[in-house]
Amino acid sequence: MNERYDIAIIGSGPAGISAALNAKIRNKRFIILGSKEISTKLVKAHKINNYLGFYGKSGVEIRDEFANHLKAMDIEITEEKVNSIYAMGEYFTLMVNDKMYEATSIILATGVNFGKPFKGEEEFLGKGVGYCATCDAPLYKDKVVTIIAYNKHEEAEANFIGTIASKVYYVPMYKQEIEVDSSIEIIKDIPVEIVGDSSVKKLILKNSEIETDGVFILRDSISPGQLVPGLKIENNHVEVDRTMKTNIEGCYAAGDIVGTPYQYIKAAGEGNIAALSAVSYIEQIKRKNKEV
Amino acid sequence: MNERYDIAIIGSGPAGISAALNAKIRNKRFIILGSKEISTKLVKAHKINNYLGFYGKSGVEIRDEFANHLKAMDIEITEEKVNSIYAMGEYFTLMVNDKMYEATSIILATGVNFGKPFKGEEEFLGKGVGYCATCDAPLYKDKVVTIIAYNKHEEAEANFIGTIASKVYYVPMYKQEIEVDSSIEIIKDIPVEIVGDSSVKKLILKNSEIETDGVFILRDSISPGQLVPGLKIENNHVEVDRTMKTNIEGCYAAGDIVGTPYQYIKAAGEGNIAALSAVSYIEQIKRKNKEV
Repeated sequence: MNERYDIAIIGSGPAGISAALNAKIRNKRFIILGSKEISTKLVKAHKINNYLGFYGKSGVEIRDEFANHLKAMDIEITEEKVNSIYAMGEYFTLMVNDKMYEATSIILATGVNFGKPFKGEEEFLGKGVGYCATCDAPLYKDKVVTIIAYNKHEEAEANFIGTIASKVYYVPMYKQEIEVDSSIEIIKDIPVEIVGDSSVKKLILKNSEIETDGVFILRDSISPGQLVPGLKIENNHVEVDRTMKTNIEGCYAAGDIVGTPYQYIKAAGEGNIAALSAVSYIEQIKRKNKEV
Repeated sequence: MNERYDIAIIGSGPAGISAALNAKIRNKRFIILGSKEISTKLVKAHKINNYLGFYGKSGVEIRDEFANHLKAMDIEITEEKVNSIYAMGEYFTLMVNDKMYEATSIILATGVNFGKPFKGEEEFLGKGVGYCATCDAPLYKDKVVTIIAYNKHEEAEANFIGTIASKVYYVPMYKQEIEVDSSIEIIKDIPVEIVGDSSVKKLILKNSEIETDGVFILRDSISPGQLVPGLKIENNHVEVDRTMKTNIEGCYAAGDIVGTPYQYIKAAGEGNIAALSAVSYIEQIKRKNKEV
């Protein structure tokens, strides 16, 4: 049986790590899934003057302060990407590549990096469009697969699927050097639309077309509505109340994902609220289970 | 004519000063009214571990970081106590002892230090009960006045009213040494109830009674409902939406005053949101006035 966490925090920006501090202080069993780099957005910030307590520091310097804080409190970020989360009633199941985690409550703090879906992406989701190459690889044995990748990390995914599919096209959406197996065909072009009939047939790019049976879109983060089926989204943001509770019992959200202003201190404050709300929820669940 | 500020921030705890940083960055004309000490509550905190970025620091150390931040951005806290705020339509009037300020928008960030009203306090408000001795002094010429004071600063108020009233009783609710004019009678007892008929007649204390024509209750902060007539209060907190807007147009609130959890980072995050919401509001007002 999988160990069940009290809280799973998805995302390691200011909202996620602020939530983690509070989960730790409250002695909850928790996992925080994200990047040890903390936040790629934060690192790019030139100077931040409105995070109360820090003046004139760069994004990198503030990131380092955050990292020191986590280290001092012995909090480790787990570097894994969550593909989907299912509400199972009194707990959640998190699909993380080839693993599964269970948690009584979740805090979504993945930011707003997910971008706009491609034309046809939502229409063909599950009919040839997917977000986890490793998970769905067996479906593409001896078939043609196209991978649209937003991060160099995904090259390993491409190589893996290359051992199963008859042909892999790799469309890199990042600037670093591409290092994939020589059997994989690299397409330097911009995806425009996914087309097909009952399932995917073609990826149309700006200057070319690829005939393909499947398209994997490997973004840094998946849009929240795709990540957690049934989650209420309003104006592209997760809808929450003032306790950071979403429409799903036990599911909280914090940071840019819940709306503007996109500010670090706002995100950190919301992470604090979300964690304390999750703690109350967990205690309520535990009390209820004791009574039964 | 009074100069009109874009934003008046009332309160200098983490919510208020976080709001001030953003008002400054956005080049708004603003005033922040509070204490140069920043927050008496924060200073009392032994160790704070969940303010993201600071680990293992005491309340005083964090207060000093906040003070440095304000200094670096050239933000001065004005040490004055607001007695009441009136919504005048497109601006607010703030009554500050013998002065008046005007502001297009206000941010309430006075915390939750106001305590429970005394029995009879609300009933006799304006009928002998008041919160600003200096303001109402002329009404008590040759009458008996009782001052219930929560802060040593109020001794000056007592001395001033002593020059007008026929008799002043002074009930200190703080522990420091009392230094008031010798004509003032110091009562070391605990107030219980204010009684009277059409106006105040008596203050009943735990071990004594005082016949008096007026009772001034000088707390560090006034409850928000008394401070801003018409403000919607729910469960002892100011009701706000996710943009920190109250029920009054142009009036925002942030920090403990809007509800639990009472946490510094949550307050700072909300101050950020409130300031940016106020900035949008001001710009909208300015556009509207230009069109007319």
